[in-house]
Amino acid sequence: MADVVKLYGVAGSPFVCRVKIALNLKEIKHEFVVEDLSNKSADLIKYNPVHKKVPVLVHNGNPISESLVIIEYIDEAWKGVPILPQNAYEKAKARFWAKFIDDKCQPALFKAIASHGQEEAVAEVHEQLQFLENELEGKKFFGGDNINLVDISATFIAYWVGAAEEALGIKILIKDKFPKLIEWSDNYVNCQVVKDGLPPRETPVAFFKKRFGKA
Amino acid sequence: MADVVKLYGVAGSPFVCRVKIALNLKEIKHEFVVEDLSNKSADLIKYNPVHKKVPVLVHNGNPISESLVIIEYIDEAWKGVPILPQNAYEKAKARFWAKFIDDKCQPALFKAIASHGQEEAVAEVHEQLQFLENELEGKKFFGGDNINLVDISATFIAYWVGAAEEALGIKILIKDKFPKLIEWSDNYVNCQVVKDGLPPRETPVAFFKKRFGKA
Repeated sequence: MADVVKLYGVAGSPFVCRVKIALNLKEIKHEFVVEDLSNKSADLIKYNPVHKKVPVLVHNGNPISESLVIIEYIDEAWKGVPILPQNAYEKAKARFWAKFIDDKCQPALFKAIASHGQEEAVAEVHEQLQFLENELEGKKFFGGDNINLVDISATFIAYWVGAAEEALGIKILIKDKFPKLIEWSDNYVNCQVVKDGLPPRETPVAFFKKRFGKA
Repeated sequence: MADVVKLYGVAGSPFVCRVKIALNLKEIKHEFVVEDLSNKSADLIKYNPVHKKVPVLVHNGNPISESLVIIEYIDEAWKGVPILPQNAYEKAKARFWAKFIDDKCQPALFKAIASHGQEEAVAEVHEQLQFLENELEGKKFFGGDNINLVDISATFIAYWVGAAEEALGIKILIKDKFPKLIEWSDNYVNCQVVKDGLPPRETPVAFFKKRFGKA
């Protein structure tokens, strides 16, 4: 029986894009089911009754939620390009950084964006991002020569932050402070599997203008 | 070369106890290094420069932080009793519930405890715990016949919540609403590997009295 893979999502969500990129990396054919978050489908509520959020991946009828959990599942359920390192210690480090991005960087970035680059909020983000900047020392990607779980987790940093900067006329990723992160962002969004998983830049720009722009 | 395993922690932390229980389950000999959180050691800051928090596991010089990341590492680096399911889909479900406990249940429980059982806060916790209650249907442990990642993640629910109830004279885990969770708590804390990883009950009781008790 051929695999039936459905991804429930919305085009503009960085969490959904993480999963798309992981599916692209493994060359997994899938159907993208667009959700209307103001009127969630019965399927979404059935498949993710706890959070009722996208992304949800449904593989042969089995639903999985939470983007990082989905990515690890994809890596384990399909052969092909590995997304996590094979070595247990390297794997633990990748999971640590992915969790750091989710728990610390993204909320801090969102706060800095929502505050239109308020000084204290930006200082907090810079403190977090400095760890990632250091982590890229001597490497093209967080995964080394190839993208891995950490790169995919940092999709928001690579693509959404620049869109927010453009939409609101602010600057968070300062070139002098984060040369490696900026170089990484360029390299990452130009990988074909990543590019194919991202919405057109107008989508996040319009989102940030609508959500946080001055009237 | 024999493995050198050190766990940096404090006796009363449910996050540290998670790691202890995982080490006990795998029968891994280790040294427990007690940290003074009001005067953190140079080792702790060196090993966990990002969060500067316990637990940190150091295996042959390699430091790992974040309790769930550590547990997955232990499961992968050592043979013995498996902590995560072997099947990719079951593994994803276990990771989902562990994350749910960390992201939703524990913060909601802490809020309910800190508020001395304020009605709205308890209602929110009950909504979260109902998912776990349902998950235990027909099972002794979240892992089925044996404890797994989800059980270990829920250590706070099994042991700390009862201590908070006793310390503050409140009731969160109501028998009529959560019969399975209460039965599970009893079964879980009575497993030898769990018991050996927990502080004496006086420790969390005293903590909650000091932190949230009425003067």
